[in-house]
Amino acid sequence: MPPLSHDDLATQFDTSWDGILDTWKICTEFPSIGSNPNHTDDCRRCAEWFADRLETLGVVTDLLPTAGHPVVWAERRGREGSPTVLFYGHYDVQPVDPLDAWTTPPFKPDYRDGRLYARGAQDNKGQCLYVIEAIAALIERDALDATVRIVIEGEEECGSKGITAALPDWHDRLQADILMVADTLTVRSGAPTITMGLRGLALVDLALRTAAYDLHSGMHGGVAPNAATAAARIVASLHDTTGRIAVDGFYDGVVPPTPREHELANRTPFDADAYRTATGAVPIGGERDLDPAERIGFRPALDVNGLHAGHAGPGAKTIIPAEAALKLSARLAAGQDAQACVDAIVRHLETHVPDGVELTITDKLAAGPALRVSPASPVIAAATAALETLDDRSTTYLWEGASIPIVSSLAAISGAEPLLVGFGHEDDRIHAPDESFSREQFRRGFLYAGLFLSRL
Amino acid sequence: MPPLSHDDLATQFDTSWDGILDTWKICTEFPSIGSNPNHTDDCRRCAEWFADRLETLGVVTDLLPTAGHPVVWAERRGREGSPTVLFYGHYDVQPVDPLDAWTTPPFKPDYRDGRLYARGAQDNKGQCLYVIEAIAALIERDALDATVRIVIEGEEECGSKGITAALPDWHDRLQADILMVADTLTVRSGAPTITMGLRGLALVDLALRTAAYDLHSGMHGGVAPNAATAAARIVASLHDTTGRIAVDGFYDGVVPPTPREHELANRTPFDADAYRTATGAVPIGGERDLDPAERIGFRPALDVNGLHAGHAGPGAKTIIPAEAALKLSARLAAGQDAQACVDAIVRHLETHVPDGVELTITDKLAAGPALRVSPASPVIAAATAALETLDDRSTTYLWEGASIPIVSSLAAISGAEPLLVGFGHEDDRIHAPDESFSREQFRRGFLYAGLFLSRL
Repeated sequence: MPPLSHDDLATQFDTSWDGILDTWKICTEFPSIGSNPNHTDDCRRCAEWFADRLETLGVVTDLLPTAGHPVVWAERRGREGSPTVLFYGHYDVQPVDPLDAWTTPPFKPDYRDGRLYARGAQDNKGQCLYVIEAIAALIERDALDATVRIVIEGEEECGSKGITAALPDWHDRLQADILMVADTLTVRSGAPTITMGLRGLALVDLALRTAAYDLHSGMHGGVAPNAATAAARIVASLHDTTGRIAVDGFYDGVVPPTPREHELANRTPFDADAYRTATGAVPIGGERDLDPAERIGFRPALDVNGLHAGHAGPGAKTIIPAEAALKLSARLAAGQDAQACVDAIVRHLETHVPDGVELTITDKLAAGPALRVSPASPVIAAATAALETLDDRSTTYLWEGASIPIVSSLAAISGAEPLLVGFGHEDDRIHAPDESFSREQFRRGFLYAGLFLSRL
Repeated sequence: MPPLSHDDLATQFDTSWDGILDTWKICTEFPSIGSNPNHTDDCRRCAEWFADRLETLGVVTDLLPTAGHPVVWAERRGREGSPTVLFYGHYDVQPVDPLDAWTTPPFKPDYRDGRLYARGAQDNKGQCLYVIEAIAALIERDALDATVRIVIEGEEECGSKGITAALPDWHDRLQADILMVADTLTVRSGAPTITMGLRGLALVDLALRTAAYDLHSGMHGGVAPNAATAAARIVASLHDTTGRIAVDGFYDGVVPPTPREHELANRTPFDADAYRTATGAVPIGGERDLDPAERIGFRPALDVNGLHAGHAGPGAKTIIPAEAALKLSARLAAGQDAQACVDAIVRHLETHVPDGVELTITDKLAAGPALRVSPASPVIAAATAALETLDDRSTTYLWEGASIPIVSSLAAISGAEPLLVGFGHEDDRIHAPDESFSREQFRRGFLYAGLFLSRL
């Protein structure tokens, strides 16, 4: 079958838009916060909704149980001799606090000014949906030769534990030539973007205790140790004054960029002013002597995700906090071993905990290593061609700072070559209040997926 | 008139006990939670009750309005040439949550096993009442030469704002030689105790901002500054590694203890094991090269009361927090100017805020200076003599770490020498569920107040 043209697909999208928007809204109504046990049923209902949607395409679907939330699996066999694409996405979303910072409620999707506002509107329900809609369009037009396998999990935002543990059992279901993922961003300029790298992820949560209960700061100030101060001193010890991570052994194995990667990564110079305008942040975190693009794409980072101790809210409460809770996450560069990084952080905490302070590691997770794709891959060439059909700008190759640890694992078990193309924008505010995704980017995603898949 | 003897007073107390207990119960029935606007009427009714009780003694009473709850004022003129005593107390009480942790309801006083259980049974209604009952006894026995002025306020537990603002207007009503306060503890051994010092108090609240919203730790880790890390680095900068406060100019004016004060303060050595058993804390906070008793009684302390940034609760949320909230309180030593300390802390914050971080001082308060009474004062000698008449143990002189800023203000405006003797015990559970006060300690308070006042 001849591949569909850009115009065919564009017409198809524009005439189907009302139905697509309805579908998009429905799937963002599920409060499928995978990390929160109160939302277990919502996750299941969301998984069932995706399975039902895929079944209407006439493909074989299955809801695969895991130790956590179920995984949606689907297969549409293609023409003999055609390649197999494994598409991976996730239906779980990030928590929504602070709730009062949302303009409209996170699970009441609101379409305004050309954008859908909802938790998950982009990450990752929206980006999953344009791929599914493109597959539906190709099937309808009989323009899909490739075999397509689909895996949509429910724990990506909290470590993909269920699917990761189940992967070996699903070996046969997952075999593929290309691992297609749509969970990434387009560069700020809007030029077509292929993500060539992702960072790995490691998490360590800890609690510090200095007393049996919060102590009166008058009766005990100057005598009792302060858990908040202890937490602060530990955090301050994690980096040196140049922003370099001061955890012994943490940088072991880091692979520097090749000259070709370095050249591609620096084609678009980092724009500090644009960054500041978009985020409100001055881009001076991390290792100050390296370029921001290199810091994000090729270097690890260690961040505090949460630090809480003592009295919150209005008014004074003159206490010496007895406990502090600290959540750390590390983004890992290619070559770092995630478990070794967790171990190095825990060792650092144990050696830096102040006297009189009891340290408990409350959680730790070596979520997965970094991923780096070769710029010489033919899959990258095919995706570049599809992208450049729908956009007259040349493709940007991006080494991203984010992590999708499951992608490294899926690439390994499926034998497929990863292809990461996404249409997210910085101002989609994923993980934050008022997450949204534009119709325009959703449409581009649909066109790219349709063009790429119909040409296989 | 000859002073009453210990036995006279003891007989008087024991024969009047039934009536005293009834009075004590009635005054603890008012839910006079001064910080809670829902209890405004209860506070007024409680103030009226105290005024009525004082009127039955035949003394001039008045209910003085303030911007907050009214202040009970009373005066009983004594013999020409006798000293004037200004007694200060408070009728407001702490909140009562968690309510279900009380054995009997907080405002249904229950006398069992020699203790009255009720919110305010000790702090400060009970300790006020034994002084009032002693004054009543002396008046009845015509054994009170001194002029007595009484001030009982309704906002001590929430900052004494009303009375503090009104003090200049009440200058003439407050003139006195001795400022008598019964809002302190007896040492753990039960030996008679005079509080010789209180620390001053200064508060600074601040907010740090590094971005317009929480940023994805993958996409921004290594580039965006982290508000939690910024807060931690600021907190870590507040003390050096020996526990000394590293805020420039903070120690200006600190008056070291005299050899006599040092000797008195160290008569009962600090018991680190007992401290640890009671609090669960290892007493190694503050300046490590100084003795704990000196650190609490004669040195300032700077504590974090609250530090909050980013994600709290279970599960991972891999963000770079955009804001952090930090609450600091300083306990001040004699000689420090509270406003100068606030200014020094603010200057330190301004000079230590990391690049790329926006600092906002959200609140600051120079609540009041420290108070230190000379061991050579004749008032202390007279109080010691009274205490040692009713107890064969020698008096403990205590330099406390806590603050009662209104006492410093009252001492300044009244020109009176402060005398802080209280009969509270650690296990009275003030501010906590099941607050109580024993008949035995109430009786000792009555005997001390009677002996001290009748000898003036």
